[in-house]
Parts: sequence; C-alpha cells; structure tokens
Amino acid sequence: MIIQLDKDISSAQLEGLKTEVSARDYQVREVHTQYGNYLVGLGKKAFDIRKIGHLPGVCDIHRVSDAYKLVSRKWKAEATHIRIDDTLSIGAGDLEIMAGPCSIEGEAQIEETVAHLVANGVRVMRGGVYKPRSSPYSFRGLGIEGLKTWYAECRKQGIRIITEVMHTEQIEDMLDYVDIFQVGARNSQNFNLLDALGEVDKTVMIKRGMSGTIEELLQSAEYVFAKGNERILLCERGIRTYEKAYRNTLDLNAIP
Amino acid sequence: MIIQLDKDISSAQLEGLKTEVSARDYQVREVHTQYGNYLVGLGKKAFDIRKIGHLPGVCDIHRVSDAYKLVSRKWKAEATHIRIDDTLSIGAGDLEIMAGPCSIEGEAQIEETVAHLVANGVRVMRGGVYKPRSSPYSFRGLGIEGLKTWYAECRKQGIRIITEVMHTEQIEDMLDYVDIFQVGARNSQNFNLLDALGEVDKTVMIKRGMSGTIEELLQSAEYVFAKGNERILLCERGIRTYEKAYRNTLDLNAIP
Amino acid sequence: MIIQLDKDISSAQLEGLKTEVSARDYQVREVHTQYGNYLVGLGKKAFDIRKIGHLPGVCDIHRVSDAYKLVSRKWKAEATHIRIDDTLSIGAGDLEIMAGPCSIEGEAQIEETVAHLVANGVRVMRGGVYKPRSSPYSFRGLGIEGLKTWYAECRKQGIRIITEVMHTEQIEDMLDYVDIFQVGARNSQNFNLLDALGEVDKTVMIKRGMSGTIEELLQSAEYVFAKGNERILLCERGIRTYEKAYRNTLDLNAIP
Amino acid sequence: MIIQLDKDISSAQLEGLKTEVSARDYQVREVHTQYGNYLVGLGKKAFDIRKIGHLPGVCDIHRVSDAYKLVSRKWKAEATHIRIDDTLSIGAGDLEIMAGPCSIEGEAQIEETVAHLVANGVRVMRGGVYKPRSSPYSFRGLGIEGLKTWYAECRKQGIRIITEVMHTEQIEDMLDYVDIFQVGARNSQNFNLLDALGEVDKTVMIKRGMSGTIEELLQSAEYVFAKGNERILLCERGIRTYEKAYRNTLDLNAIP
Repeated sequence: MIIQLDKDISSAQLEGLKTEVSARDYQVREVHTQYGNYLVGLGKKAFDIRKIGHLPGVCDIHRVSDAYKLVSRKWKAEATHIRIDDTLSIGAGDLEIMAGPCSIEGEAQIEETVAHLVANGVRVMRGGVYKPRSSPYSFRGLGIEGLKTWYAECRKQGIRIITEVMHTEQIEDMLDYVDIFQVGARNSQNFNLLDALGEVDKTVMIKRGMSGTIEELLQSAEYVFAKGNERILLCERGIRTYEKAYRNTLDLNAIP
Repeated sequence: MIIQLDKDISSAQLEGLKTEVSARDYQVREVHTQYGNYLVGLGKKAFDIRKIGHLPGVCDIHRVSDAYKLVSRKWKAEATHIRIDDTLSIGAGDLEIMAGPCSIEGEAQIEETVAHLVANGVRVMRGGVYKPRSSPYSFRGLGIEGLKTWYAECRKQGIRIITEVMHTEQIEDMLDYVDIFQVGARNSQNFNLLDALGEVDKTVMIKRGMSGTIEELLQSAEYVFAKGNERILLCERGIRTYEKAYRNTLDLNAIP
Repeated sequence: MIIQLDKDISSAQLEGLKTEVSARDYQVREVHTQYGNYLVGLGKKAFDIRKIGHLPGVCDIHRVSDAYKLVSRKWKAEATHIRIDDTLSIGAGDLEIMAGPCSIEGEAQIEETVAHLVANGVRVMRGGVYKPRSSPYSFRGLGIEGLKTWYAECRKQGIRIITEVMHTEQIEDMLDYVDIFQVGARNSQNFNLLDALGEVDKTVMIKRGMSGTIEELLQSAEYVFAKGNERILLCERGIRTYEKAYRNTLDLNAIP
Repeated sequence: MIIQLDKDISSAQLEGLKTEVSARDYQVREVHTQYGNYLVGLGKKAFDIRKIGHLPGVCDIHRVSDAYKLVSRKWKAEATHIRIDDTLSIGAGDLEIMAGPCSIEGEAQIEETVAHLVANGVRVMRGGVYKPRSSPYSFRGLGIEGLKTWYAECRKQGIRIITEVMHTEQIEDMLDYVDIFQVGARNSQNFNLLDALGEVDKTVMIKRGMSGTIEELLQSAEYVFAKGNERILLCERGIRTYEKAYRNTLDLNAIP
C-alpha cells in the first residue's frame, strides 16, 4: 500500500495517519524523495483503503501487492520520465543511446569518442573509471582523476556522463562529475551502495545482476527510491545461461 | 608466476629481482601477507624460471598458469590449514561444522543455540547481524549491538563466531567480535569489500556468487590474498539453476 | 487418487467402480502392470475416499496430489526394490555399481571389461550400441550385432547388461539381449519411446533430461508405469548450468 | 569440407574423387538431396583444396570448419529461401507469420481460426494433433483424423499447415496432410526422427531444445540435410533459464 501525502501535511496529521495504518496491522515506512512524500504500508490484512484515503493530509492511496512497492507501475497514472538535467530527460517512447568505451583510457580516446558522439547526435557517453574486474591484477580504471578529465571534455561539447560507482565512499567525490551513476551487474544487490545512492539527487541506472530476476532488479530499485531518490533507470544487460555462443543472453522479455 | 621471497630479503635485492622479472615482459606485483612475502609475475613469455630462482633473496619460484595465482593449489606443497585462533584451525581432512540461525534475534535465541552447539561438540556458530535482503522493508539484522551481545555469550562457552560483513565500513567495528568474516553470495564480487578484508588478519570465508563460476570464486579469493590476508575459506552454497524444486542447486563438483 | 484393485475383481465390479469415481467428476484411467491393477483418478473435487475404499473389488485407495501419481512415494508403504532378474534386484539401501565404456567397440574391449568387472564384484555392465550423437557424422554404435556379441560374453560371466534404446523399433530386437533398457537424457521426454517401454516386462532406467526438472523426470516415469511396467529406475546424471568447469552439474539434491 | 558434385558426374569419377579425398585422411560421406549431390569430407589435415576442386565431376569445393557442415552459412553464396510449395517460399528478408492454437480441438475451432487467418493475410496455420505432454494423463491430441479434418478446411482456403510429428511411424500417414513438419523442443535431438525426416521431400522446422545450444540445433539440422532433405527451417522458441517470470527466455541473439 502506498499513501501519497499532501505537500503541506502537518506533523500531527502524519502521526495520526501512521497510527491509523499501524492499527490495521500494517508496518509503516515514511519515504521522502526529491519529488514527494509517501507512506509505504506493509501488511496482509484486507480493508477498505478509502477509509485511509479520506484522512486529512492524504493526497492519494494505492494498493500494491507486488514484492516491490514504490517502483511498481501499478500506482503510476502515467509513464515515467526520468530527468537527467534541465535539458535532458529519458523515458517511455524515446530512444536515448548511451555509447562509449568499456574503460576511459586517456585524453586522446576521450576526445575522439566525444567527437564521434557529437557527430552522431548521441547525448550520453558511457565509460568506466572504476572497473570491477574478476582478477585483482587487471587494470582497474583511471579513478577520480580520469573522471575529471573526461568530464571537462564532455562539458565543452554538451555530452553527459554515465559511469559506474562501485563503493559508497566514491559517491561524494564523483558527484559533481557524473550525470548518471551506474550500478554494475556485480553490485546489483549491494544494498549498502543502493541505500547510499538513494540519498543523492542524481539519476541512478541499476544493471540487472548476472543471474538476477526481474523481481530482484525491481527490489534493488526499491532500495534507492525508499531512501529518497526517484530518478532510477533499469538496465537489461543480458543474463548468464548455459549458452556459451555469446557472453550473455539478452532477456528481451524483461523489457516491458 | 609466484616468487616466494626470503624473510630477510634486502630492499636492494628486491629491487634487483623486480628489474629482472620486468625485463622479461612480466608485470610484477609485491604481496606481503601475515605469513610471507611474494612477487606475483604476470606475463606470457616463456623463459627458464630457474634463472630467477637462483637470484639472492628468492626462496622458491613457481609457474602458475591459472587465472588466479596465489590461491592456486599448484604451488602449495601441502594441503592448507587455515588458522582461526590459537586452538582452532580448519583444513583438509577435517570436518568442522558451523551452525546457527539465519539471523541473530536476541539473547534467548543465542543462549539456546549456544547450549545446543556446546552439547553437540560444534565449535563455530553462524548467524547474521547484517542481513542482505532483497527487499528494503525486510528485517536487516540487529547490527553491531546484536553482535556484541552474541559475542559475549559465545566467549563464555568457547564458541567462535562467523558472521557476514556487508560493507567496508563495518569491518573495524566488527573486528573484535568476529572470528570469521563471511562474504555473502551477493557480495562475492564486491571487490572493494574483498580488498578491505585483505588488510585484516582475520579469517575470511567467501561464499560463491549465485551464478558465480569456480574460477570467479577463486579470483575473488585472490583479491583477499593479494592484499595481504592468506586466511581464506571458500563456501559452496549452491548455485542458481532452472530447477525450482529447491532454492539452490548444490554443486558438489565444486568441492575438490 | 490411486485405487489398488483386488486381483480377482470382476468386470462388473470394475465397471461399477469406474462409474462411482466418474460420478465425482474424476477422469478414470485403468492401469494393468506385471504386479497389479490400478485405477488412477484425476480430478480436483474433495470427497471422502473411504466411500470408494469400501466398494467391492477395491484393495486400497490413496490420495496423491502430485503431478505424477503411480510413481509417487506417497502411497507406497515400503521402499521399492526393482527386480532385474531372479538373482538381482536393486533398491533402497543397496549400492549397485553399473560400469563400462561409453560405446561397445569390439570383442577385445568387451572381454577385458567383463574380466575387470568380475574381478571387482560389479554385476551390471553399461555400454552403448546405439549412440545418440550431436553430429550425424560421429560413430553411432555397433547396433544389434554388437549387442549380441556383448550379450554372449556377459552371459558366460553372469554380468547383466544395461544399454540405451533410442527408438521404439529397436525394442523388440534388443529385448532378449538386454537386462535394463536405458532411456538417454535426450530422450527423457520422448513419450512414444516411454509408452513403448511401458509395454515390456523389463527394467527401464530413465535418465534425467539435460535441463529436466525432477517433476518432469517423475512424469516420464509415470508414462512407463501407466502403460504397464513398474520396473523403473531413475538416473540423476547432472544437469546443464552456466558452469563450464565440468560437463554437467551433478544435482545431488535430486537424490532423496 | 563440402564438395558440390556435377549433376552428371559418372560413377567412375565419383569413386575416383572419394579415393582422392580418403587418401588425405578424410572420411567421406555421400549426400544426395532433392537439390544436389555432395561429398562431405571430415578430417583435420590441411591441404590445398584446389587440387580436389579441379578433378572431373567437381562443381565447387568449400572448407567448412564448423561442427556442422552442410547447414553452415559459410559455403552458401546467397541467403537461403525454403520452398514450402509452388506459391510459397520462406526466407531471408521476409516475415512469414505462422499462427494458430496449441491443439487442434475440432471443426468449429478450425473454421473460426482459418477465417481469422485469411482475414489477416496469414498463410500458414499451426496447431497440434500429436501433443507431447509432460503428463501421460493430459490430452494428447486428435491424431491423424484430426489432421485430415483440419487439412480439408485449410485447403479450401489456401492455408498451409505446420504441425508436430513426434514419431517416425507417424510420418507416412501425415505426409499428404502437412506442409511443414515441426520437430518439437523435446525431440530436438531425437536423431531417429531427424534421420527419417531427412528422407522426405517436405519442409521440416526444428525447434531448439529446451536447453539446446545454437550449435546443437544446427547439428540437428545437419542430420536432416545429410539424409537428403535441404528444406529446413529453424525455430528459436526460448530457452530454459533460472528466470521464472515467464515460461521461456527468448534468446534473441540466436537469430542471425
């Protein structure tokens, strides 16, 4: 159950509301995001939700029986558009290509790539400066200095940056140089990282785990939303199956 | 290639050795653990390793062609025993049972479990105080205070504790109350966490990822070793397959 | 629902019984095996089965809610022993090793193998004379003549033969030279073959499909039983997963 | 290695050719289809294939190193079009929809479906009269009589029929009432069935096995071609993975 709260709900009204919901054997969780205030109610008892819906301070109320709540499509009247910045938003019906190399390697590579993207009308560049590598001996990326160089070049040309954040401690340093934080497949259920990304006002793209289910991916998104950040993109990047003719098996069904 | 260094190798000898190895188109990485000092050489060029083996400061040298090096069985003359503490070590040929609940829930549960373990000769108790949960609304464990309570009870009875650490920031707080740090399946490739656990002198048990390969598991162990910690246990906990008759499919082949 | 029939049930009693069961919205299927006569009732309506149990001609009656019925463990009072021949039966608590080469290749190989089995107390030899091969150009086995040669040698030494049958048309020719018919993983859901093997009085061993579920394997066994043959062995031979370190992943959980 | 033979190659030339190829340590297999005559050479020794290419009776020669040979794309100069009948062929660049129910159930259903297909310009109707069912108690289809009824209705309206054949013994009876024989996922490696379908001059559509690899699917097609039938369609029908949100995971990568 999701209760959308009025912007100007008083704290007395909020407490009263929580008491009413709790009285029906529901756990209550307050969620405050950049776009709204919510109560998430978790319980199993059926009751007439209109009785809650009519209470002061309630804007709207929705029954959501999925394992995830706030990221469910069921209570959204309209398709979501995710704001990247003042002039770019991504959402239903549009195709936005994000392109770039696996790793950011240096200025020459950046310049060449940016020029290519600009020439082809691509507005978002991807690349890694923190690279999760199976082996500790592999190149692990240029780090924050590489990101700054990359950012400087992109800003000149109006290109946005999506790049992977691997650890909560990197978030603050990266914040000013990133347009979209990417959570990699190996961190798809790194809940501390997801929690921390829920506390920034910046778009987060969560990649599906190597053997993650759709439901798990949506629950990972719920972590981010429940901590306060509604700007979430999901990425189907292929799953791990028995087939070895290609690296991953694209799961087309996952795309609604 | 793994070069075991003499304990009293001089820094001049070490530099000379690194120069010799690098000259053969090998990358060199120094590794210092609680038990020894190593150079890991990464390259493809074949050469007579005895030429390096005879240099001053070299104790022994081994060719290891696996994707992982230090954790490879190939250069170990004897089966490994992992020291937990002064009176407990775990290793080849022994069966050591670690038992306990999914989550630590409170004193009564702890006392009852500890009594049961003592009565049955079990020496290690498992349980979670930081719980990775698919849903952000599920109980996420009692945290550090729960761990302290648990530890106090276990110490009275001589029971050791194995428990999951989810985040680098938890390590320091947990250090004095844990005998074995457990890395959960979802964090099996959380390389920042593995790096950090390589810097403590405490046993680490890494669980195989939900769809992790044997090679990936060993490479995760390599992260810990390469940062300085040789006290590593690996856990086959079942993998994710198409079969839904049970939660996970135990991969018995994974156990050598 | 399984109704075990009296051996001397009259046809009038049988018809009456079927009418009673059908009247409760259950489909009825008669099954006659080498060991007994059954009615399998398929329906969802709950009723007091004792009312059927008391009818003349009924020996016993059991509720079985699994997707499979006759092969369910639920209605069996005792663990099953499968008779291979007068002096060999296989079943719960015993370990019977079946060993031999992938393909039967010729007399020398047969003689050498049989001698080895006899020396080691193994009583059943496996080998293929009809080989399912991914490629049409691979060796597909010595066929019926190879089987006859093999059989002659085995009979001299008291060794039994288990070998794969790939096609219904092979059954009759093979019947006198085989102790256990093996259904290969690729034919685990070849229902025409399973039906046909239900009509012989010879043990059948069904291998689990490469990605077959436990339930599917048991349903394949149900095909054989429902056609009249209760002498069924099941074989867990490993399943196909993402892990490529070994050819198949043994699913130990599958063994009760 | 594939050698395309001249239509009017003499038997002396053919024998000479086989001798030449065998002399290079290659196994030779003659293949005669409705469209051409081939020698498939299987071996590993490298040699200048032009020496064979210049021999009398040879039309063309191709090196094919895949596990499958005749169905490889590598030796085909042009994209294949598969002839269904005089007025319908299926192939690269065209989209041909085949639609219909899981099972053929009776005249009313057939008539309604055919009318719907005609109204929508669909030219091929699918449906099952022999149904592979996990449970022996499920409806297994109307069989050959159902097929005849279906065929009569389709012929009136110019609709073609694709339907599953489960067993070699069904082929002859079905032959006059089927436009495309479908091999189901469970029979994707039923090599006796594939062999038998190689001996008819009718299009065969092979569905990928539930956990079949691309290579295995192509090798199954090789069975049909090697027995003499080049009219082969392949069907990607989704594979079995850990994801249970949908019945099968469509493997889009499988489509070239």
